[in-house]
Amino acid sequence: MQGREFDIIRNYFAGLGAAAASRGVALGVGDDAAILEVSPGYQLVAAVDTLVAGVHFPPQAAGDAVARRALRVNLSDMAAMGARPRWFTLALTLADTDTAWLEAFSRGLALDAESYGCALVGGDTTRGPLTVSIQILGEVEPGRSLTRAGAEVGDLVYVTGELGAAAAALDYLADTTQAEQRRALLDRYYLPTPRVAEGLQLRDLASAAIDISDGLLADVGHIAEASRVGVRLDARMLPLFPGLTEISGERQALRWALTGGDDYELCFTVPSDKQPDLQRLIDSGDIGATAVGEIVAGRGIECLDQQGRAITPEQLGNRTGYQHF
Amino acid sequence: MQGREFDIIRNYFAGLGAAAASRGVALGVGDDAAILEVSPGYQLVAAVDTLVAGVHFPPQAAGDAVARRALRVNLSDMAAMGARPRWFTLALTLADTDTAWLEAFSRGLALDAESYGCALVGGDTTRGPLTVSIQILGEVEPGRSLTRAGAEVGDLVYVTGELGAAAAALDYLADTTQAEQRRALLDRYYLPTPRVAEGLQLRDLASAAIDISDGLLADVGHIAEASRVGVRLDARMLPLFPGLTEISGERQALRWALTGGDDYELCFTVPSDKQPDLQRLIDSGDIGATAVGEIVAGRGIECLDQQGRAITPEQLGNRTGYQHF
Repeated sequence: MQGREFDIIRNYFAGLGAAAASRGVALGVGDDAAILEVSPGYQLVAAVDTLVAGVHFPPQAAGDAVARRALRVNLSDMAAMGARPRWFTLALTLADTDTAWLEAFSRGLALDAESYGCALVGGDTTRGPLTVSIQILGEVEPGRSLTRAGAEVGDLVYVTGELGAAAAALDYLADTTQAEQRRALLDRYYLPTPRVAEGLQLRDLASAAIDISDGLLADVGHIAEASRVGVRLDARMLPLFPGLTEISGERQALRWALTGGDDYELCFTVPSDKQPDLQRLIDSGDIGATAVGEIVAGRGIECLDQQGRAITPEQLGNRTGYQHF
Repeated sequence: MQGREFDIIRNYFAGLGAAAASRGVALGVGDDAAILEVSPGYQLVAAVDTLVAGVHFPPQAAGDAVARRALRVNLSDMAAMGARPRWFTLALTLADTDTAWLEAFSRGLALDAESYGCALVGGDTTRGPLTVSIQILGEVEPGRSLTRAGAEVGDLVYVTGELGAAAAALDYLADTTQAEQRRALLDRYYLPTPRVAEGLQLRDLASAAIDISDGLLADVGHIAEASRVGVRLDARMLPLFPGLTEISGERQALRWALTGGDDYELCFTVPSDKQPDLQRLIDSGDIGATAVGEIVAGRGIECLDQQGRAITPEQLGNRTGYQHF
């Protein structure tokens, strides 16, 4: 634990007093390490995700937006595992000490930590190019976690929420003429909704799950690969973010939904005997999810377009997912 | 888990097969998160430390040196808690894809992970200015962890190993005339020895502990503050790194040992009734440690110089520890 800047962050957390979130914290921020109590009989779930200024967000982005997005993409990893988020550590590299930015960052982080019941337990603040790395820790009962492996032929493929908005926000940044639409899309980019509650509900229903960070085609491809199966998607069933088609036509909306990253919805598969249970959760409004395809024999991903024909790579602009490099 | 670069790192780990280290890994690298089994009845210990090129190491530093130092400074946090390191995640930000550098990085990381029985369980590779952030996870029995609080008046203050070499290496970098001495010092800087075994042995002996990352004065100050006591150090007892005095005189050697960071030795306190047990460990060679002072009533740090007079801030060049900002 180093750096005077970290005191600002710590003070905001202390100020908001995330009491509910700090259960299981035997020793928090301020020593050489935190001491945590994993619930007896539970497994520990650990992930890390980094956001770099100029790569994952514009350098001029507001502090609270950066903090919340950094925590939410990590929470999304917990959701994809069916894990309950508990704690996180923060490695924050700052180019300079902009107190207003840092206070906004701290407020945003505290807000989402409180909302999602996840406590900051340690951190390191260093001088350098603006980078936010969060390591998140959660819990899951043995045998109930969701992984990418486990999908079987005949399972239906679902996604939560709506797709395409985050990718549209990126493409749309250049167009400054339609301020209102732009704001709705940017909100989806900066403030994705990690599907933590949905992940917990899916623990006994889904055969496989992943969060959509690189685009639906790429991420459902990870399920197919890990499960050694094929996938057939139907673009007519895709839950497009409202207004996407109006913004720039059907083909572009489809591209955004299939190949755009950063939506952080869940993609999951459900065997036929569990589909009635899922349908009850959907009908009661507990889960917002849409069937978009099915698991098939073989390998690879096929996607039918609006006319029921297989989509070609050319139709997607040869993009099959966000390449981080 | 993202980034093609990470595959190189993963392959090196798979290649070396850190089988002993991967105990407790129910699901390792390759899904949205790792699933880990904390030993029943143990507490989880978590810390994070970041190294930034140009701040914590020269941009041209070799990949293996950077990787090993990054892991070792984190292992040192486990040592300071009396915890057994188990797992770690890696957030690696790279400016470009230098395969040779990355392979050296991976080899170095694998080497130390194997040596210290600590498994890589997850990571994120992003594009940006070279930054290495490691989050380390360990275990400790409830009630046996070492913290900064707990030192009491009359306890003796000890340090492991020898002090001053890492700080000398930094000051010494400008002097290119004495290659051999320089190499020994640089080795201490890049390859500090995390005192993990010592930390485990000290669990039932030490009343407080910290690792020396910011300099002895600054770090023993953290013990004093957390324990609400004062400290009196005696510079005549300091275990200086061999040759330091010869390099640039007694006063400079003392400055390096007292205010130089990066030694990553442990500083710990032992009550009088436990000192015979500690002495037995020292006599048998199980722990290399030296008494350097005592805990006194009051607040603050006093340090006697070679003539038994209180050292003034001026003698230390007004430095009381490495400020990261």
